[in-house]
Amino acid sequence: MSSFDSLWADLLPVGRHPATGGYRRYAWTATDATLRDWFTGEAGRRGLDVTTDRAGNLWAWTGDPDAAAAAGRPGLVVGSHLDSVPDGGAFDGPLGIVSAFAALDDLTARGWSPRRPVGIACFADEEGARFGVACAGSRLLTGVLDADRARSLSDDDGTTMAEAMAASGHAPRLLGRDDEALRRIGTFLELHVEQGRALAAADGRDAAVGVASAIWPHGRWRLDLRGRADHAGTTRLADREDPMPALAGAILEARASAGRRGVLATVGKVRVEPNGVNAIPSAVTAWLDARGPVEDGVRGVVADVGRVAGTTPVEESWTPPTTFDADLRDRLAVLLGDAGGVPAPILPTGAGHDAGILAAAGIPTAMLFVRNPTGVSHSPAEHAEPDDCSAGVAALARAIDALT
Amino acid sequence: MSSFDSLWADLLPVGRHPATGGYRRYAWTATDATLRDWFTGEAGRRGLDVTTDRAGNLWAWTGDPDAAAAAGRPGLVVGSHLDSVPDGGAFDGPLGIVSAFAALDDLTARGWSPRRPVGIACFADEEGARFGVACAGSRLLTGVLDADRARSLSDDDGTTMAEAMAASGHAPRLLGRDDEALRRIGTFLELHVEQGRALAAADGRDAAVGVASAIWPHGRWRLDLRGRADHAGTTRLADREDPMPALAGAILEARASAGRRGVLATVGKVRVEPNGVNAIPSAVTAWLDARGPVEDGVRGVVADVGRVAGTTPVEESWTPPTTFDADLRDRLAVLLGDAGGVPAPILPTGAGHDAGILAAAGIPTAMLFVRNPTGVSHSPAEHAEPDDCSAGVAALARAIDALT
Repeated sequence: MSSFDSLWADLLPVGRHPATGGYRRYAWTATDATLRDWFTGEAGRRGLDVTTDRAGNLWAWTGDPDAAAAAGRPGLVVGSHLDSVPDGGAFDGPLGIVSAFAALDDLTARGWSPRRPVGIACFADEEGARFGVACAGSRLLTGVLDADRARSLSDDDGTTMAEAMAASGHAPRLLGRDDEALRRIGTFLELHVEQGRALAAADGRDAAVGVASAIWPHGRWRLDLRGRADHAGTTRLADREDPMPALAGAILEARASAGRRGVLATVGKVRVEPNGVNAIPSAVTAWLDARGPVEDGVRGVVADVGRVAGTTPVEESWTPPTTFDADLRDRLAVLLGDAGGVPAPILPTGAGHDAGILAAAGIPTAMLFVRNPTGVSHSPAEHAEPDDCSAGVAALARAIDALT
Repeated sequence: MSSFDSLWADLLPVGRHPATGGYRRYAWTATDATLRDWFTGEAGRRGLDVTTDRAGNLWAWTGDPDAAAAAGRPGLVVGSHLDSVPDGGAFDGPLGIVSAFAALDDLTARGWSPRRPVGIACFADEEGARFGVACAGSRLLTGVLDADRARSLSDDDGTTMAEAMAASGHAPRLLGRDDEALRRIGTFLELHVEQGRALAAADGRDAAVGVASAIWPHGRWRLDLRGRADHAGTTRLADREDPMPALAGAILEARASAGRRGVLATVGKVRVEPNGVNAIPSAVTAWLDARGPVEDGVRGVVADVGRVAGTTPVEESWTPPTTFDADLRDRLAVLLGDAGGVPAPILPTGAGHDAGILAAAGIPTAMLFVRNPTGVSHSPAEHAEPDDCSAGVAALARAIDALT
């Protein structure tokens, strides 16, 4: 076995909430700093040079990535992220980084001699759990997230991203597209735990590792439901302007419309004001997450929910469909296929990833998924079997070897 | 006009939130201390003796209430409370206390000479907004709220009632039924803004002041809806254990069942975990407030909601029906009737009050309601017209005069 186990064990306790067993690893916090220090330390132990880009993403390079880029042979980058959603699982993000270190260790032990530099990336704030914008680090790197907007994003306590970055020692004035860092990336490859069970045996393709075809179009919408605060114990039913039935309608229609249209839709976040047991709410804010294979279906469910809830959904984010590099995808599927010549499964995903942001920026990009037996993710119950993690490391090592 | 206007003006800015225009006057806070100091100051200016009972309620007495009680003629107490729900209105509570001072001023100016002591009460923590138990001050006074339970109640920040009381200078070890304070109360009379529009002209009885008949049975129930956290963007609809549809069902059934059964039911408070836009919730907690003329209807709606939501509602509080003293009610209705001999309207309410707690403890108790043109309460929009407030003061003065 590779060095995977000891790397994995080091990360396990960091940011784990004792009551829930879930991870609370939010960007630009003390926990995040611990994770970043761990990354820098592991890179240093392997003789890799660590640099921080303008967005605060970390890069650990073999060789001289600038010289290689100048010579027209920019490097291969593998990696993922270390932050989490609230009470997330251990695998989403860290599996990709730990597997990258372990794959490099395996290759090095076998006397591997790459013809171009290899970097391991640790993207900042992939989940957007604290400041509300997913893939903030890669969006800043590629310039699709405006630096001024990013600096002014604030968390639930009113702390801005600029303040949080500064407190963690990263100068927020640096934010902005980073062409120097981008030039070094010839190819990007992200390994990630599957967040679904297309690869699982029970009803899926029964494979430990698959290759991504595309990321579904996806977005977030806010529903502002207005009411009038009133006394719950005295206001006649007919006199009420209660926003809660509209919330109920939105929840039920999101599910029903998603089923009709073959997409996914979720109401996962709700804010009720004033949120008192004996007060009819004055306002309810609910957020709708919707994704699907085609944009029309996603837009349709958003329109359906808005109609039932009696409001126009406010689009907070929208990511068009991302198709990964077809040549790279097919090459990896064949490379990672079985001994009988059957290629590895190719599958789309509804989850956004930094790999999607880099692909949209024109960088040849691919993703590998490691089987998730239950499909559960964004949960303390998220899991991948040790054998499948080993298979992921082996697949990543083969891919790195083939691509360098 | 009485001294009402200047007393009212003094209270208006205290604890008013600049953004919402609503009041945030929570028990045992700095704002609460300001309100209690105001009460003590106004009592002192009128030569009233202020005492604090074991529960922390304030009492401002004329004469010698202990001697009167010993002589078998315990006093008349008028009063209400100064605390508020989150973003509540200006009238709920303070109207009763300001009117009590103003009524005493009017009577004093007219050379009134009572035959028994009169007290003005300022009950602590009537709304239960901070620690979750309504009428905490009167429940502690009468012993129906256990002192140990009260001390351990905690607010959203984890501060216990005992800690909050101690920080405000009231010793929590004193908590417990206070027979000495109770013995002084021969009769209790609370004036309150109506929280509904039974008295309003549009479809009501067109009267400035009414007399309470009863407080409906009412309670609070908690709905624990369990799910499994999962990724909103990848988990198939069929694989989800999402507690939100159960929440939607509870909201809609509360309204529908209440309509069928002729009661009031409200889902006004909801907690979603982890409350992330891209996470299927692991759990939702919702609170159901239900009240009505008869217990069967209230119990019925709770059972209906539990059945639809697939959970057994947990009863957090229950108050049986309270019928106010019939002789006192009828005497006040005649006393406050119009010149043509038509008695003042008599009406029930769905709102709990300290008067209800004292009535349940066996103290002859009555309530006066002042017209609320819109019926809106527990809201910054809560309102009563100045003329109706004046009529309330005049009615209270007549009642005090007749009862002493």
